[in-house]
Amino acid sequence: MKKLINDPGDVVTESVRGFGLAHPETVRVNEDPLFVCRAGGAVAGKVGLVSGGGSGHEPLHAGYVGQGMLDAAVPGAMFTSPTPEPVLEATKAADGGAGVLHIVKNYTGDVLNFETAAELAEAEDITVRSVVVADDVAVEDSLYTAGRRGVGGTVLVEKIAGAAAERGEDLESVATIAEQVIENVRSMGAALSSCTVPHAGQPTFDLGENEIEIGIGIHGEPGRERIPAAPADEITDRLLNPVLEDLSLSSGEKVLLFVNGMGGTPLSELYIVYGHAHDVLAARGVEVSRSLVGNYITSLEMQGASITVLRLDETLTELWDAPVGTVALRRGL
Amino acid sequence: MKKLINDPGDVVTESVRGFGLAHPETVRVNEDPLFVCRAGGAVAGKVGLVSGGGSGHEPLHAGYVGQGMLDAAVPGAMFTSPTPEPVLEATKAADGGAGVLHIVKNYTGDVLNFETAAELAEAEDITVRSVVVADDVAVEDSLYTAGRRGVGGTVLVEKIAGAAAERGEDLESVATIAEQVIENVRSMGAALSSCTVPHAGQPTFDLGENEIEIGIGIHGEPGRERIPAAPADEITDRLLNPVLEDLSLSSGEKVLLFVNGMGGTPLSELYIVYGHAHDVLAARGVEVSRSLVGNYITSLEMQGASITVLRLDETLTELWDAPVGTVALRRGL
Repeated sequence: MKKLINDPGDVVTESVRGFGLAHPETVRVNEDPLFVCRAGGAVAGKVGLVSGGGSGHEPLHAGYVGQGMLDAAVPGAMFTSPTPEPVLEATKAADGGAGVLHIVKNYTGDVLNFETAAELAEAEDITVRSVVVADDVAVEDSLYTAGRRGVGGTVLVEKIAGAAAERGEDLESVATIAEQVIENVRSMGAALSSCTVPHAGQPTFDLGENEIEIGIGIHGEPGRERIPAAPADEITDRLLNPVLEDLSLSSGEKVLLFVNGMGGTPLSELYIVYGHAHDVLAARGVEVSRSLVGNYITSLEMQGASITVLRLDETLTELWDAPVGTVALRRGL
Repeated sequence: MKKLINDPGDVVTESVRGFGLAHPETVRVNEDPLFVCRAGGAVAGKVGLVSGGGSGHEPLHAGYVGQGMLDAAVPGAMFTSPTPEPVLEATKAADGGAGVLHIVKNYTGDVLNFETAAELAEAEDITVRSVVVADDVAVEDSLYTAGRRGVGGTVLVEKIAGAAAERGEDLESVATIAEQVIENVRSMGAALSSCTVPHAGQPTFDLGENEIEIGIGIHGEPGRERIPAAPADEITDRLLNPVLEDLSLSSGEKVLLFVNGMGGTPLSELYIVYGHAHDVLAARGVEVSRSLVGNYITSLEMQGASITVLRLDETLTELWDAPVGTVALRRGL
């Protein structure tokens, strides 16, 4: 294992510390317990948005803290859910008096720990609503999940619900918008290589010289099948078709097409995948009216990509277009 | 070789096509000859900025086309300079009547081809000035270079000169600003792995299980030395110290600290490098007043990082802070 790290046990704290030093105009790092919140703290009268989960998926979630998106993010240990305590403290730091929305990816540890934190917050008179993102169509139930896994759709939920909160909607309404995104977003990913968790010291799974895992999870959980290396267009079809089937898109509808890198894949390859996915959607009469391409929810240095499609209506489009001022996603601010 | 590509010969055209489809509000792709320009074309009365070079370093350069930065970018074949013809056509597309600045990385092919294109443009009555970026302190002369190589500093030259052009400065003044950045910026990088150029089909160089190349070039050119795997702090010292020596920074000065990923390294590792570099500068009394962390000039899927330090004054800081609206760097737009 060769990595740009010091002690494997210090990776998360050292990395989050560096993140805080690099972006003091946008975020503040609370070291104990560890969470990241907006530089200016909670916004009075605004619904607070908190997300979090195991580290190793950067820029998710700390990269999405800032105006128009999250109020706080809680990085757990590598690929490991944060415990309830930092989630509770982040919830308090995000509370501007209008309640807090927890955005949780559907992994058993995250669901349980955010649930406990929500109960503790309610005991301190903070109203908490939770939504659970489960957009990965690859498999039902998985290594760390009952039901579908939460993956790329999470970035879109955070952006769109964040915009709703920023324009002053109340907790019920922000939660409803988040649920609308969750109902209309689907994803699937493929891995060309494994990744290595620092304290494990060896690859999470083995993949042959000439094998690709279709339907990979963001922690290296098994997908649907292993296939021999294939052209990008074929891999794109194998990811996009199940997504489109599950969404039952009709000709004439508009979508946001999000091609995400797993961390170790060149941007040039992501744009090849994007181009073919765009063509497939056009051939079905579906209009790609918004796009996102890049490394937004990663699995350390894993090579591969995922495709996320979100069905858009006017409200979601307007909220997607709203200004956002985070480290990893910035437009108009 | 496992990659998300179709035919190795189509990687650049397919990728640039996807880039154009994904970002029509920011860029337009000219397919033959291949270049990328602003969606709205040249800005009348503004100095045009053109850069380019071999592909494989994305988001450089096409990701920096847009308001406040480049007017056009010319992607060559993978790791291969574009020929004069597309550079000439991009220069014409970028010309708003106030002349065009070529920003060239110091590689023999790029320097020659941009020089020829500049002569051809002058013959068509477009005034062209050129600046050559040569910020890599690792080695004098290299595999494809007489003198020092142009690396991470290029991103900063494009941003800062772009802001000067956008606020209406003339060609002479924009070139002077670019030269000021070039004089005050230094970089050095390290590789933990090689990368594989698609049409070559095998790694550009061999690096042992436990080896790190210190002073790597962005095409995998040899650096200063190979060392056994070491902690991030030590690698950071080995990159930062030669940069600081070459810049002869004094206590009390301000800098922009740019930690760049080579394409295959997790963001979390880049922030560990950033944190230690920040500490080293602070210990020397140098204030890090601006920062950039991420994959901005890459070498396909290479694992590793480079450190770039730019000495700031008020003018450069103001130009760095100016709004920018490109695909890969966006703030205030």
